Amino acid sequence: TSVDDSLSLTGPKVVAPPMVYIAGEEMTHYASNLIVEKWIKPYFDTTNWEEYDLSCKARDESDDQVLKDAVDAGKRIGAIFKEPTITPTAVQVKEMGLSKPFGSPNGAMRRGWNGITISRDTIHIEGIELGYKRPVFFERHAVGGEYGAGWNEVGQGTLLTTYLPQDGSPPFVVDKRDLTDEQNAVVVYHNPYDNIEPLAHLFFKRCLEADITPYIVTKKTVFKWQEPFWANMKKVFDEHYKEDFVKAGLMEECGGELQHLISDAATMKLIRWTGGGFGMAAHNYDGDMLTDQIAQVHRSPGFITSNLVGKNDDGSLIKEFEASHGTVSDLWHEHLAGKETSLNPLGMAEAMIGAMEHAATLDAEKNPEDADKQAVKAKIFNYCTTLRSAMHNTFRYKQGTRDMSGPSGFTTEDFIDKVAWRLNRYLAQQTEESPPPTLHEPSRQFRRNYDVDLESVNEMFVKFDKNSDGVIDIEEFTDLLVHLNLAPTKTPKAKDKTDEIL
Amino acid sequence: TSVDDSLSLTGPKVVAPPMVYIAGEEMTHYASNLIVEKWIKPYFDTTNWEEYDLSCKARDESDDQVLKDAVDAGKRIGAIFKEPTITPTAVQVKEMGLSKPFGSPNGAMRRGWNGITISRDTIHIEGIELGYKRPVFFERHAVGGEYGAGWNEVGQGTLLTTYLPQDGSPPFVVDKRDLTDEQNAVVVYHNPYDNIEPLAHLFFKRCLEADITPYIVTKKTVFKWQEPFWANMKKVFDEHYKEDFVKAGLMEECGGELQHLISDAATMKLIRWTGGGFGMAAHNYDGDMLTDQIAQVHRSPGFITSNLVGKNDDGSLIKEFEASHGTVSDLWHEHLAGKETSLNPLGMAEAMIGAMEHAATLDAEKNPEDADKQAVKAKIFNYCTTLRSAMHNTFRYKQGTRDMSGPSGFTTEDFIDKVAWRLNRYLAQQTEESPPPTLHEPSRQFRRNYDVDLESVNEMFVKFDKNSDGVIDIEEFTDLLVHLNLAPTKTPKAKDKTDEIL
Repeated sequence: TSVDDSLSLTGPKVVAPPMVYIAGEEMTHYASNLIVEKWIKPYFDTTNWEEYDLSCKARDESDDQVLKDAVDAGKRIGAIFKEPTITPTAVQVKEMGLSKPFGSPNGAMRRGWNGITISRDTIHIEGIELGYKRPVFFERHAVGGEYGAGWNEVGQGTLLTTYLPQDGSPPFVVDKRDLTDEQNAVVVYHNPYDNIEPLAHLFFKRCLEADITPYIVTKKTVFKWQEPFWANMKKVFDEHYKEDFVKAGLMEECGGELQHLISDAATMKLIRWTGGGFGMAAHNYDGDMLTDQIAQVHRSPGFITSNLVGKNDDGSLIKEFEASHGTVSDLWHEHLAGKETSLNPLGMAEAMIGAMEHAATLDAEKNPEDADKQAVKAKIFNYCTTLRSAMHNTFRYKQGTRDMSGPSGFTTEDFIDKVAWRLNRYLAQQTEESPPPTLHEPSRQFRRNYDVDLESVNEMFVKFDKNSDGVIDIEEFTDLLVHLNLAPTKTPKAKDKTDEIL
Repeated sequence: TSVDDSLSLTGPKVVAPPMVYIAGEEMTHYASNLIVEKWIKPYFDTTNWEEYDLSCKARDESDDQVLKDAVDAGKRIGAIFKEPTITPTAVQVKEMGLSKPFGSPNGAMRRGWNGITISRDTIHIEGIELGYKRPVFFERHAVGGEYGAGWNEVGQGTLLTTYLPQDGSPPFVVDKRDLTDEQNAVVVYHNPYDNIEPLAHLFFKRCLEADITPYIVTKKTVFKWQEPFWANMKKVFDEHYKEDFVKAGLMEECGGELQHLISDAATMKLIRWTGGGFGMAAHNYDGDMLTDQIAQVHRSPGFITSNLVGKNDDGSLIKEFEASHGTVSDLWHEHLAGKETSLNPLGMAEAMIGAMEHAATLDAEKNPEDADKQAVKAKIFNYCTTLRSAMHNTFRYKQGTRDMSGPSGFTTEDFIDKVAWRLNRYLAQQTEESPPPTLHEPSRQFRRNYDVDLESVNEMFVKFDKNSDGVIDIEEFTDLLVHLNLAPTKTPKAKDKTDEIL
């Protein structure tokens, strides 16, 4: 018998499984509240959600106890949604009258949840093609590297680094260096590699499910200590996934074997591979650099996810989901001034969907015999898929926010209302009267603060309109793409030459 | 009285000042030899050049003494031209019958010449617009960071790093960390900052001369030890250059003050700022990543320079110039098989021009009273400018190599001959009959191994031809540029929002 996964405004509310809800502040806090009220609460009883307020004020009043509590709750429950928060600048500390400058909560979360990876994927809207045609996945090792470095600024002298094994075997010198400059920064860090195996499983599973080809990115050709990152990844791949990837036809582009990319070469691929359909896994800092580049190619950071995945003592995965943007202060100040705003909540909605699905999955896994829990999971997955359709189609009907639908687009509140209305229709099995249109990517000119210089655009147009007939034909277009280094090529990816002089 | 800077085939040969010439192998060695024979020797007596053969065979036969000799000579003379060399793989060690795998000569050179910076700039051809419209300069700190790291792979235990001051003050612990993973890479490095001051002078002087706006790139917001890189740069800028930059109108775009860019944000700027006209200075590894990205945007690494700048004990600058590509093995094997080849020697020619000009500058500086040396310098600068024109115009007359002029382009040998012919005309004051044409960038399809997928291009064309009239008009073109994130914007660069959700 098939599980009843239906929900409706008239039916009984579904009791949402336990989830940690971390509240932030400013415009994204306001919009998140609307989303919960208009999209979620009509269908769900959220009394099992635990809310932690990580606004600066709340952290200050509790002497940051609220952060510790949130981390503990996340460890206990395993599914976390987080609104954007503020890491106050010196000026903000003063303005808000804080007792001290509270740091980013990220470190405490990564430590508390045994962070393995920060997954950052491109967000796609069905029926609208953005920067990358198909998904691009990124696993950024969540720990190690320079983020956890010890350091000091020192003068001339000697720096001695010794390793003392826990097993009692004799200590040995890792590095001894003479510092001859008057001013030196000395830096010590380590990359812990025990969690590369779970990272690998996560990454390859995700890539396989999404039908995309995985690549491992390091600088191991020069930074020899990075070899285990690659070796551990390759071992997991060859033992557990290679066969499935080959069967799925995903290894044809890269010569049948898992490919390694040197980090600096990866910066070039990200510009050329706009077809998408690939994943990259990398160390912490490389991931920081490369995911920002991906965000730039794929319209904006508003279309990239940011999910921290950690592992609990029982082996279950802790997953925290957030948008990759901040609190959008400027819209908040406009809102406070009584002006209309138009915030695109897609990144936050994707985070909410991720957290709700993970909460349901954990609850169902912990209670495999409980038919009710299984039914709740089915309902939540159905709800999330429907919510996504309702959002995507609202954009496609040009009822989106102004970054996507232009000046005639909806306000923050109207967009949320419109999606709520459509969500209700869809859940009640009322389909649209006509199928939603397929759209080209809305002009990036609609993006906030995106001020196109039309004069310069015209100069470029004249340049590419070589025969000066006022339009660009297919030949001129080909040249244009090739000029911009954006023309799709037939050369198999793995064979891309490193020596690209000609 | 003005200095006589003329040269001609019929006049006496100019005695070229001392210079180190490092020979490499394969196709680029073959082409360099032709360049010296056809472009240089007809006008110059090169007996003061010291040649060092860094082919694998020569390094093997001398047990690498030749590398030590080359480094010593570079230190003594101060101006070095280097052909691409091979760092042999395990397979090549076997094929060439080498006694051991010789490493890259770069480390020895950076150490031996007190490397300060690797300058990597976009190469432009007058009258043909490539990826960036105006020059992009890059200073990559040549020392420090992970390239000089000490490291080990270790298990559980403790890592202790202690600093022992040279002045006898008490040692202190820089870092003590417990390693709880079974497998860890531990890494220690330092950034020596004494040479940031000369790096800053070099960088700002170069930017000012080229009329471009400087930016400093670090990750100091998180990697706090990088603060001195920025602070030292800013100090030099404010004390010595700010006024001149303001006067030159170069600080208007960035709020009148030297700007810092966070490294991951810089990856985004490099895609958006295709107008060029900016410089970036960064740490070693960041420079590695970012300059590869620049190469991708600016057609290919064949259009990027690579110059190591060091400092001699007497304060004079040691400068080594090379192309940023390798030995181009595939063309070499075609050449050996008797096939036609078409190697674009622009990168090598720029390196040669740089080395010859620096050699002349040093020689003139060391002999300020010697009128002959000053005259030689004038002749060499005139020669180099003329050689550049001869090359550029040969490309513009569509007599370039095939990467630039398509299938009807010239072979390696014919191109070098044609430039030699034109160089002679120009030096003899014979101008062209008609001015050389201004060209759009030749199709990147002409690049070796660049295999455009025309079917996919057509798909894209249809997408951007929204009204399906078979051509793209200015409106569709604007959308296209904006879609590709390449539209020039009016927003001042320094005000680019970090929070770019909408």
